[in-house]
Amino acid sequence: MEYYPAPGRNHLFVPGPTNVPEPILRAMNRSNEDHRSPAFPKLSKSVIDDVKEIFRTKTATSFIFPTTGTGAWESALTNTLSPGDKIISFRLGQFSLLWIDQMQRYNFDVDVVDCEWGAGIDLDVLKQKLVSDRSHSVKAVCVVHNETSTGVTNDIGAVRRVLDEANHPALLLVDGVSSIGAIDFRMDDWRVDVALTGSQKALSLPTGLGIVCASPKALEAAKRSKSTRVFFDWGDYLKFYEAGTYWPYTPSSQMLYGLRASLDMILNEEGLDNVIARHCRLAEATRQAVRAWGLTLCTKDPKWKSDTVTAVVVPSWINSNDIVKIAYKKYNLSLGVGLNKVAGKVFRIGHLGNVNELQLLGALAGVELCLMEVGYPVTLGSGVAAAQAHLAKKTPLIVSRI
Amino acid sequence: MEYYPAPGRNHLFVPGPTNVPEPILRAMNRSNEDHRSPAFPKLSKSVIDDVKEIFRTKTATSFIFPTTGTGAWESALTNTLSPGDKIISFRLGQFSLLWIDQMQRYNFDVDVVDCEWGAGIDLDVLKQKLVSDRSHSVKAVCVVHNETSTGVTNDIGAVRRVLDEANHPALLLVDGVSSIGAIDFRMDDWRVDVALTGSQKALSLPTGLGIVCASPKALEAAKRSKSTRVFFDWGDYLKFYEAGTYWPYTPSSQMLYGLRASLDMILNEEGLDNVIARHCRLAEATRQAVRAWGLTLCTKDPKWKSDTVTAVVVPSWINSNDIVKIAYKKYNLSLGVGLNKVAGKVFRIGHLGNVNELQLLGALAGVELCLMEVGYPVTLGSGVAAAQAHLAKKTPLIVSRI
Amino acid sequence: MEYYPAPGRNHLFVPGPTNVPEPILRAMNRSNEDHRSPAFPKLSKSVIDDVKEIFRTKTATSFIFPTTGTGAWESALTNTLSPGDKIISFRLGQFSLLWIDQMQRYNFDVDVVDCEWGAGIDLDVLKQKLVSDRSHSVKAVCVVHNETSTGVTNDIGAVRRVLDEANHPALLLVDGVSSIGAIDFRMDDWRVDVALTGSQKALSLPTGLGIVCASPKALEAAKRSKSTRVFFDWGDYLKFYEAGTYWPYTPSSQMLYGLRASLDMILNEEGLDNVIARHCRLAEATRQAVRAWGLTLCTKDPKWKSDTVTAVVVPSWINSNDIVKIAYKKYNLSLGVGLNKVAGKVFRIGHLGNVNELQLLGALAGVELCLMEVGYPVTLGSGVAAAQAHLAKKTPLIVSRI
Amino acid sequence: MEYYPAPGRNHLFVPGPTNVPEPILRAMNRSNEDHRSPAFPKLSKSVIDDVKEIFRTKTATSFIFPTTGTGAWESALTNTLSPGDKIISFRLGQFSLLWIDQMQRYNFDVDVVDCEWGAGIDLDVLKQKLVSDRSHSVKAVCVVHNETSTGVTNDIGAVRRVLDEANHPALLLVDGVSSIGAIDFRMDDWRVDVALTGSQKALSLPTGLGIVCASPKALEAAKRSKSTRVFFDWGDYLKFYEAGTYWPYTPSSQMLYGLRASLDMILNEEGLDNVIARHCRLAEATRQAVRAWGLTLCTKDPKWKSDTVTAVVVPSWINSNDIVKIAYKKYNLSLGVGLNKVAGKVFRIGHLGNVNELQLLGALAGVELCLMEVGYPVTLGSGVAAAQAHLAKKTPLIVSRI
Repeated sequence: MEYYPAPGRNHLFVPGPTNVPEPILRAMNRSNEDHRSPAFPKLSKSVIDDVKEIFRTKTATSFIFPTTGTGAWESALTNTLSPGDKIISFRLGQFSLLWIDQMQRYNFDVDVVDCEWGAGIDLDVLKQKLVSDRSHSVKAVCVVHNETSTGVTNDIGAVRRVLDEANHPALLLVDGVSSIGAIDFRMDDWRVDVALTGSQKALSLPTGLGIVCASPKALEAAKRSKSTRVFFDWGDYLKFYEAGTYWPYTPSSQMLYGLRASLDMILNEEGLDNVIARHCRLAEATRQAVRAWGLTLCTKDPKWKSDTVTAVVVPSWINSNDIVKIAYKKYNLSLGVGLNKVAGKVFRIGHLGNVNELQLLGALAGVELCLMEVGYPVTLGSGVAAAQAHLAKKTPLIVSRI
Repeated sequence: MEYYPAPGRNHLFVPGPTNVPEPILRAMNRSNEDHRSPAFPKLSKSVIDDVKEIFRTKTATSFIFPTTGTGAWESALTNTLSPGDKIISFRLGQFSLLWIDQMQRYNFDVDVVDCEWGAGIDLDVLKQKLVSDRSHSVKAVCVVHNETSTGVTNDIGAVRRVLDEANHPALLLVDGVSSIGAIDFRMDDWRVDVALTGSQKALSLPTGLGIVCASPKALEAAKRSKSTRVFFDWGDYLKFYEAGTYWPYTPSSQMLYGLRASLDMILNEEGLDNVIARHCRLAEATRQAVRAWGLTLCTKDPKWKSDTVTAVVVPSWINSNDIVKIAYKKYNLSLGVGLNKVAGKVFRIGHLGNVNELQLLGALAGVELCLMEVGYPVTLGSGVAAAQAHLAKKTPLIVSRI
Repeated sequence: MEYYPAPGRNHLFVPGPTNVPEPILRAMNRSNEDHRSPAFPKLSKSVIDDVKEIFRTKTATSFIFPTTGTGAWESALTNTLSPGDKIISFRLGQFSLLWIDQMQRYNFDVDVVDCEWGAGIDLDVLKQKLVSDRSHSVKAVCVVHNETSTGVTNDIGAVRRVLDEANHPALLLVDGVSSIGAIDFRMDDWRVDVALTGSQKALSLPTGLGIVCASPKALEAAKRSKSTRVFFDWGDYLKFYEAGTYWPYTPSSQMLYGLRASLDMILNEEGLDNVIARHCRLAEATRQAVRAWGLTLCTKDPKWKSDTVTAVVVPSWINSNDIVKIAYKKYNLSLGVGLNKVAGKVFRIGHLGNVNELQLLGALAGVELCLMEVGYPVTLGSGVAAAQAHLAKKTPLIVSRI
Repeated sequence: MEYYPAPGRNHLFVPGPTNVPEPILRAMNRSNEDHRSPAFPKLSKSVIDDVKEIFRTKTATSFIFPTTGTGAWESALTNTLSPGDKIISFRLGQFSLLWIDQMQRYNFDVDVVDCEWGAGIDLDVLKQKLVSDRSHSVKAVCVVHNETSTGVTNDIGAVRRVLDEANHPALLLVDGVSSIGAIDFRMDDWRVDVALTGSQKALSLPTGLGIVCASPKALEAAKRSKSTRVFFDWGDYLKFYEAGTYWPYTPSSQMLYGLRASLDMILNEEGLDNVIARHCRLAEATRQAVRAWGLTLCTKDPKWKSDTVTAVVVPSWINSNDIVKIAYKKYNLSLGVGLNKVAGKVFRIGHLGNVNELQLLGALAGVELCLMEVGYPVTLGSGVAAAQAHLAKKTPLIVSRI
């Protein structure tokens, strides 16, 4: 049963949930099975192990929770910190805002650094705070790698350098929900202590898995954490890892088979480097289109540009919601609205997950039609042409078809 | 298992098989069932009845064969004609050529009228032949409504008028494989005697159903036909229709459920008139793009333009196969090659079945990139812009989302 | 990819996850969609509303969390109680044990009443505790309706009467994970304050939804609860209910469409009363088989018999794990092992969810073969015959086929 | 949409179409693709080659037609024989009857040998006819390997010996629709000239593929055959085999991917010998059950017993249709009715395709319940026990789970 059927494929260009490719749908098209059977641990181990490659870590321990990104946040915080612990975090968009809200409601002592929406974190402020914290009262620095609401990607390697330079032992907790598996993320190189993502983003799965990787240092912290937790507790998982049965409670076998298919596609078929290059290519093409339309990015500085989502600022006399509405109602195109501070002012084009050049060009052509419809003086084809010009230079032959 | 995997959706723009939408995939995702159960006739009757609406007939009898268009041709011929019977037919492209080959191999006496590839049937020649056939030795006129290899749509209403004016009783047999359900087809109004299509075209199903509608006159002819036939025999089906069990041999329940879903989408959700209008809109947008690229249609005259496939002529110094190859290898875009007489000279863009504006614009953007890659001096975005301009004027709000 | 393939269908007779019927698989076979689209709230509202019928409540508010039963427990506790609050709970099997463990780790003050495994809760003890609690220091009574590890169903109506007779205002929190939707459950009649279930049990869905219904009194309690919570917080959901967007974070659209299909099957096609009658019929047939085999139930008294799972005690010289192993390795039959205190001593037959008479009889025939294989002197066919005798009397014609 | 929904799985025990296992459903769950793409021939070649292993032939050429068994018959006859050619064939049940009807309608000169329904072919009669045919006017002997309507398997090796002993060059054409892939079939050893099957039987696929293998001698005959044919013509296929594109008209990619999965399951996972042994085991168990019920087989002599279908004769005062009806209406069990001469007198239990011991035992238990319901004095559990006794001795551990 469809609620609002429309001919043809939906162009799903929100920054998550993303398009689920057919091989993943196929892998998931199955009845339940007994997760306590002798067969199940083989599947479990394979995904628990291999998912770490997406995080580029060999040293971390991975946990696959039946939850969403919000739950993964909760797992990251409650396993490593105790109520009252001091956290430095940056509020630079809707998702960092929500994570900070969660921190506060869990009674952590959050030193919130407010940034302009569209800007990334201010490394100088961070440095100053860390250097001045001689007693090492700060227990964690929490950063959203890619702020999905504004299209801002923070430089996590630089954050690590600031911590190092300040010689500060705080844990580094990173939300990679809309980056990991799409934007270069180097958990081991950057010594991230907890990194997390959700299944419905770069992995191109349905919503339902919150994936958390914890460094040895984070695991140590977990032993001392006084935050109450059961569902999201790493310790419970570790006991079942040791027993070789892996799950303290029932997992979704469908989602695990789907994850297996997703990892096969990313790691074995396309290759993670190629996946990242594709996101980079599609993102730059999108930015070229925006420029050609005469519009600007919400992202304040190119150094923060995001390769998974582009937030586009509309002129003040246009309500960006109207663009999103007409896209859905007329062209079966799903765009992201502006949230909170930028509501009505930006719309967002997600270019994340299992998506390719022509899907993007179709979406950009659709955006042009919507811009025209709301009265913006766009030259039809202008953004598409700019994007094409970039893609023509950068798109390689498809690996399997050379 | 994928043979040549690629990221993102394939842009399937061959003129069949066409994109299978998710509701149809869902309807077909099922194990076998007993086609002799009390439940099965309900499904059978519903699709046998409703499929006639696609042909716009209330008077014909429909047959759903587990076969392809080639089998449907065979069913049309062998049920209505006897070996040696005279047929007038027009050879104007690869599919009319193949049908004529079939007629000849079945020992019918085919009066073949060769036309230039890219032209439609010559109604004057037909008229002359019919008028001069005072003995009514011609038993059938066989016409391909839409010649998929050249993008030529013949005017079946005009054929009927020629028959009427000549007062000729020949049967009118029409191949509507790449038209029925997409281009306006009026079986009753045009008094077509046998019309046929295949599941993998406008119905957006997998290949596997050859659907044949026979007028009362055709059913009468079937009683006298001396052509040998069993699998494709209408009489066997009619016996089972009468018995209320519908199938002389095992049908594919999956395909029938899929057909049910397809008919629901076309007849109830979008509406057949809207489906036809959409095909018209997408086709015109494609032709505008071709013009903007400075290329020409294989179709010799606008009166024959096809709303389901556009055959594009490339300059003599370009091999059209190269465009199709690069489309597949670099952009995961499937285009149709030129066949037989027009091999290497044309490539084909199918815009048929469950497909929408942005999918088409993505495909057109892809064609531009391929044209550039083979050295054709295309202005990127030019075709897309021309297509957008047409679509902006013609695209209505999606029915369910108003 | 299958890890341990076997010919034919797996007979999945663990007490969850349960068989997912084809209509649900079909409903779930879809890509992601934008959960912020205008279409999504229609689906959301329909399942949030209708799921309450499974709980037989009109007064409660339902919450559908992307989690499992363990998460649903957490939601029930943390929304209604504050750290240090006194709870009475009964430890009578593995799942009540785990829930109590969770309560303790959340720093509630749990008055644990240990019961023999196989027995249900002792209503006299409960009464005594409540009556003696004149200060009403007890804030909640937490009961597992159906203890899945021992096949024990507690009488929730009787618990309510005890509370009423003691005139005690404690909240009544009920785990209905393996009962709701299969065993008669009357949230409103019994004035249950929080009731919860998981998708992979009676609803016959994949794992991934934790469904919680809260009475008005529970919602009031939630306003005062000092337990930290975000992911599982009802308040966040209520804000989005009011806004008409329903989800504070991304839900799984696939699971919601699956839930829609499940509710359609249970409420509209078969009818909840018939579903419950079927569970009752299959369970009694199973118990008759156990008796015919000369084995006993883990359930100590018929008044506690469970209609969703039968735990069978094996003679002391047999390791019940061997039965489960051979069932899997030879007959592709999945049974439940004994857990914790009854490990090796019982095996469990789940008869829960979308399952019918002949599936059960096949499974019972399989159990007989396994019993024989481990050396138990079973008469082949004896249990099947006993089960058949019961089913022959009780099985009605299938509603849709009368 | 379900027409007559019922809880739980349908027990599909008709002798085809058979249960489609999940791995095949998964493989088929896909949109269309361009069958002229560079990727497609890989798939095509792999199934065209590997399907021959099911026929146990290395010398034959295989053809996979988008049709049913009836079409495969037509292909076998029209490619090898000319109108007027003499055929010896045996009418021993509904399917041999229908094939003979087809032969006659194609104007072959059929020497029909009528046999009692329930008996196999009379080798002495065959021998006598062949020996007396000194002029070798007989061009073909056509045999149904397994007559699905009566549960009779003919000895094809013996037919070959009769031909050899008579030194007769007639072609040997064998219908293996309900045998190949389930009952031992040795095309090369027995020098069968044309053998054929359908996808919806032992291969456990949906209906839609008619698979025909032709010996070199049959291919030679095809060059001389004067029967008209196009759709079913081998020559057209051979041209496309040579070109490496494989298909003269559009195939169903879904069915080919499904066939690939089916071949993987049969040849690689379970192993063809094990598949055949399983069919043998399930069939004997079924026969033991029939004996225990005090009923008899339609099969007149054990030498003709069929390992894919058991036709059970009911007492004269019972209408076998009533058993089939109650099975469907009450127990969601699909059995085969008696056809034509044995209508009302026999019901049929198919045990064919991807099915296992417990599914069969469930079905047998269901048959017992139906027998009881129609008034037959059956001892509940008796047939199940007899079947179990056989299975207990013969069932090996599942290959992948040892």
